[in-house]
Amino acid sequence: MPEMRHDPVQRRWVVISPERGLRPTDYKPCREEKEEYDPFAEGNESDTPPEITAVRPASSKKNGPGWTVRVVPNKYPAFRVEGDLDRRADGLYDAMNGVGAHETVIEATDRDTDIALVTPEHAFQIGRVYRERLVDLMKDKRLRYVLIFRNRGRLAGASLSHPHSQIVATSVTPLAVAIELDSARRHYDDKERCLFCDLLAQEKQARSRIVYESDRFVAYTPYASRVPFEICLMPKQHQHDFREISDNDLRAFMTALQNVLQRIKVALDDPPYNFFLHSSPNSESLTPRSSHWTTLRHDWHWHLEILPRLGNMAGFEFGTGFFINSTPPEQAAEILRAVSL
Amino acid sequence: MPEMRHDPVQRRWVVISPERGLRPTDYKPCREEKEEYDPFAEGNESDTPPEITAVRPASSKKNGPGWTVRVVPNKYPAFRVEGDLDRRADGLYDAMNGVGAHETVIEATDRDTDIALVTPEHAFQIGRVYRERLVDLMKDKRLRYVLIFRNRGRLAGASLSHPHSQIVATSVTPLAVAIELDSARRHYDDKERCLFCDLLAQEKQARSRIVYESDRFVAYTPYASRVPFEICLMPKQHQHDFREISDNDLRAFMTALQNVLQRIKVALDDPPYNFFLHSSPNSESLTPRSSHWTTLRHDWHWHLEILPRLGNMAGFEFGTGFFINSTPPEQAAEILRAVSL
Repeated sequence: MPEMRHDPVQRRWVVISPERGLRPTDYKPCREEKEEYDPFAEGNESDTPPEITAVRPASSKKNGPGWTVRVVPNKYPAFRVEGDLDRRADGLYDAMNGVGAHETVIEATDRDTDIALVTPEHAFQIGRVYRERLVDLMKDKRLRYVLIFRNRGRLAGASLSHPHSQIVATSVTPLAVAIELDSARRHYDDKERCLFCDLLAQEKQARSRIVYESDRFVAYTPYASRVPFEICLMPKQHQHDFREISDNDLRAFMTALQNVLQRIKVALDDPPYNFFLHSSPNSESLTPRSSHWTTLRHDWHWHLEILPRLGNMAGFEFGTGFFINSTPPEQAAEILRAVSL
Repeated sequence: MPEMRHDPVQRRWVVISPERGLRPTDYKPCREEKEEYDPFAEGNESDTPPEITAVRPASSKKNGPGWTVRVVPNKYPAFRVEGDLDRRADGLYDAMNGVGAHETVIEATDRDTDIALVTPEHAFQIGRVYRERLVDLMKDKRLRYVLIFRNRGRLAGASLSHPHSQIVATSVTPLAVAIELDSARRHYDDKERCLFCDLLAQEKQARSRIVYESDRFVAYTPYASRVPFEICLMPKQHQHDFREISDNDLRAFMTALQNVLQRIKVALDDPPYNFFLHSSPNSESLTPRSSHWTTLRHDWHWHLEILPRLGNMAGFEFGTGFFINSTPPEQAAEILRAVSL
């Protein structure tokens, strides 16, 4: 059973997960070649745990070929669905079980494609799967937060080159999310306006950091981007929970995401990157006195963050928690806008 | 002038530093070969900015050969000493100038040596330089925090292979440090005991995470280690400010540091790593009502953190601020203890 541990100095939860354990010599973070064997390929369905859901014609068989998008439990999960939290002390320390979920979204049968390159209909199907898994996982009241994220390239933490994203559900609201929630809450408490709506209004007026804009979505390089070419993508209309997105908006969202990812791919020579979706926490999972965050409809605004991994975090970033970014976001936005697709 | 910017969502300062700007094609994070030209080599002193201090015989000339350890301003500084902070608003955003200092400690003339491998006397001289620079930089009341850190290997962010560490002084107390300070303060307020002294007592009783222990210093793998083989090294006797370390303790500290770094080098095949020193903030730099941290002698305990960079931060870590660590710290400590030096 993986174990979550809490550091009383940094007040941060860590998952201790020996099942994922690698020996030191197994770490080869530099290799970017494709693996010889592809466990996510069509025909190799028996090599993954049994599928949770899939986009596939009614005529095809579960866990067989013929699918378009397929969700399976992660083979080396950081979290497990079974069991109790079992919160406990160990002297000054705190521990609890790593209860949660860890799923893999295999985005296509073709290893050489990419979420940026599939057809709009295919991208929409990936988006539908994201929404479906969020809806389903949040029915489990033990799970406070569900993160959908994607690691592209070995330097961004991807262990397989076959296009896939991941979903992790945790029994705590993660610190990075809680800080964002707190900021948005304070702003709303002061002003009765959404912080993200206010930021969008300022960005739309300034224009200098806008990378993409459609009727429904805006992508921009944040004013205080942590890394070069960081992107924030969000709906123009206030919406706090990704589960509530309509099919039409989901199509528009995936179109926006594909557009921005294509710009990054062209401008930066197909770099490694991470993206993650910050939707609202699971408001059903909270105890009455909980300080572990719920949101009102008004004080949160879901968004997706993209972090190209051109450099690497170093001693300064780890030692201070603040980042040195060599590319002003206005310059990054200009470069990304100039890409012809 | 580099600019610091504050993100109102993540409440984190970022330095926007165009002077460090690289074009996208300049990023080659995988290359681990040594560069052809070594600007830190003996004889190339004119290629660095003029030295701030150096360990060198009286007979040798400043900015000439003959030194053992040499401190120079960083050629591509993230912060500048000159100028005012000029705090200002930009709509919802905050900005101020990147006032601070950014120095490089060239640890030896020999490119192929390492801080882990130099003689004990040489290591002591490096430690003396660290202390001297802390003392000197903290005389500048604008500088709230001084971080000494080391990036070893390209994957850990080192841009040159010649052994060196860096010193960055900032006009804000960094978030990661503030969180630690806050934890220690709360503990002291409750108990009138030092949090780190309490943790050390528990670690010394448990033994399972201890990697190194001498009369004066202990190194252990933290209970909630963020990454495999993370190490925390600290003095057994309570001390809040590295500036106050005695020569004898400085020798013992550098011996401990060398011992632990050698263990990491052997056990993990000379991995990339970061270390950073968390000493007390500059207590002279604060305004009366400041929430930007000062410490009492009793509520802080300086320590050095070492983070081997075997994997890489991925979407999950960025998206949540919490880490998945594949190696339990007890196992890491056992492996490191077993190394024969």
